[in-house]
Amino acid sequence: MQAWENNIRKVVPYVPGEQPQKKDIIKLNTNENPYPPAPGVVAALQHMDMDLLRRYPDPTAGKLVDAIAGFYGLKSSQVFVGVGSDDVLAMAFLTCFNSDKPILFPDITYSFYDVWANLLRIPYEVQPLDENFKICADDYKKENGGIVFPNPNAPTGVLKPLDEIEDIIKANPDVIIIVDEAYIDFGGVSALPLLKKYDNLLIAQTFSKSRSMAGMRIGYLLGNEKLIRYINDCKYSFNSYTMNQTAIAAGVAAICDKEYFRTCTQKIIDTREWAKEQFTALGFCFEDSMSNFVFVRHKDYPAEELFEMLRKADIYVRHFKKPERISEYLRITIGTRDEMEKLFAVLKQYITR
Amino acid sequence: MQAWENNIRKVVPYVPGEQPQKKDIIKLNTNENPYPPAPGVVAALQHMDMDLLRRYPDPTAGKLVDAIAGFYGLKSSQVFVGVGSDDVLAMAFLTCFNSDKPILFPDITYSFYDVWANLLRIPYEVQPLDENFKICADDYKKENGGIVFPNPNAPTGVLKPLDEIEDIIKANPDVIIIVDEAYIDFGGVSALPLLKKYDNLLIAQTFSKSRSMAGMRIGYLLGNEKLIRYINDCKYSFNSYTMNQTAIAAGVAAICDKEYFRTCTQKIIDTREWAKEQFTALGFCFEDSMSNFVFVRHKDYPAEELFEMLRKADIYVRHFKKPERISEYLRITIGTRDEMEKLFAVLKQYITR
Repeated sequence: MQAWENNIRKVVPYVPGEQPQKKDIIKLNTNENPYPPAPGVVAALQHMDMDLLRRYPDPTAGKLVDAIAGFYGLKSSQVFVGVGSDDVLAMAFLTCFNSDKPILFPDITYSFYDVWANLLRIPYEVQPLDENFKICADDYKKENGGIVFPNPNAPTGVLKPLDEIEDIIKANPDVIIIVDEAYIDFGGVSALPLLKKYDNLLIAQTFSKSRSMAGMRIGYLLGNEKLIRYINDCKYSFNSYTMNQTAIAAGVAAICDKEYFRTCTQKIIDTREWAKEQFTALGFCFEDSMSNFVFVRHKDYPAEELFEMLRKADIYVRHFKKPERISEYLRITIGTRDEMEKLFAVLKQYITR
Repeated sequence: MQAWENNIRKVVPYVPGEQPQKKDIIKLNTNENPYPPAPGVVAALQHMDMDLLRRYPDPTAGKLVDAIAGFYGLKSSQVFVGVGSDDVLAMAFLTCFNSDKPILFPDITYSFYDVWANLLRIPYEVQPLDENFKICADDYKKENGGIVFPNPNAPTGVLKPLDEIEDIIKANPDVIIIVDEAYIDFGGVSALPLLKKYDNLLIAQTFSKSRSMAGMRIGYLLGNEKLIRYINDCKYSFNSYTMNQTAIAAGVAAICDKEYFRTCTQKIIDTREWAKEQFTALGFCFEDSMSNFVFVRHKDYPAEELFEMLRKADIYVRHFKKPERISEYLRITIGTRDEMEKLFAVLKQYITR
């Protein structure tokens, strides 16, 4: 080891999920949207003023911020945008979680929370989900330096009702509560109305799932003006110009097409509800999912075996081997009806052979 | 003040440079390239496979990394890419500057170094430039936790010869030395050949200046494989998917067109050398610049006065009021020959009236 390595921040490297380059596969492993972005998005990119490429973008990404604020009926000063929800969550962790007390989040949840905490040296304590994969509000009523959880939770898909979320926020007026709503648009109820009552609430959302734009990297935070200003202060001290010209143009176009958004998310919800029936009929168990994926376990077949079998059939799903509690589950993204029919055909043939 | 504000990381907000929305101005204030990106860049965006938009990008941005590595004759494992050079520098600070000893950088330099140090709580000590705005190698031979400086330096434009840079690196084997080469392509000599000899050297470059792509936010680091791996580990723990599909596609297209790159940078160098003569003829003083800007002071006219006069004529240049040592200087980006002729016409009329 060289001497200079002593000063290096060492972390256990996070390994991003597999992105197979193979074509003609059914890709149900990373919760992407099976439908293309709104038609206006492609048009916005193709007809963009190309002279913008050589110019620095607006560091406030004002047009995109305004569009998002307009969509939710908020002030623009209540919106923070970044390079995917990972960027805005990392910036929220950096800005808001500066206590010596541990932050709290579920044991089974988005796998980045502990990664950020480790990187940024934020103490944390995980709170176990109950036996039905539910977040217990009482676990979040102890002394802490902040709270973060997804709603619906990932990878379980389980939605927490708004009154239980309010219960947690109400019990913790002195810290920031981040509700990570990456999957909220698939039938969940957003904590948005609570922003009026609680100035320590921060909501994270993303264009990656419900707006079919994982490839453009756009995420955002909604919160009260003062809190958003603090986060912007840190962001401007880290990287002023995060949103490139294409992301701003494409993002605005996506937000503007409310009808396309509504239609696409409804199609996914419909396919999911139908898929739940198929999973049940094939002997799978799962908690009710309100996201664009289901988290299923088969009563007879090990997850690993089904995962490998599907992979051989060019159907990619996600298998989290750890922790052991979820090692028998598969997280399966809701694709198009056609893709799901192919999935069930392969599963049926294997399970009932 | 609410109780939750106690846990907020508070920073003096960095204020990004002015981006006037007004059209038909001559914009010489942010060191953008006056020429459009390579023709292949526009084509790459317009003909992009739009199905990529809904898919997560390759987290390694492999195609872009390979293209950059190929351009410099390095291994792909020696290249780290990010959202502009600010992103890659911030990630390098976070990863590499974890000592209790202060990092060292010049007193007059890129204004983000102290901002990152403050945000990330890295101790630092600034080293004054000499009276000719030169970095004195001997100032960097004291105990430190790392070193960073731009070459050519900004906003002075002064280039440090390679042997003096090697002198600094050689004297500091136990820390990381970042040479920020944002402006190196305008006639400077890169520290690239030193990578073979020193494994603690990190070079930062950007697509924003010499590749006319400030709007796409692409920056990169070049270093030894082990060091790049450490930085990638931290990056994957902060935000795995930073480069969106359009940035990857556009970046690859830009790198591929070597001839366009050579022609454009040469045009800017030629205009700069001609502009130096004009500045001298009009009574301006300056150190020799090897970047795409000149840092000038007039022997009779205050900087503030010239700045305001030019602004009224719709010509935007940059005036750093602080520190006092440079308060009488203007940083003027090299535009097209036509833009510069207009600048000199306005200056001449004012100065010789």
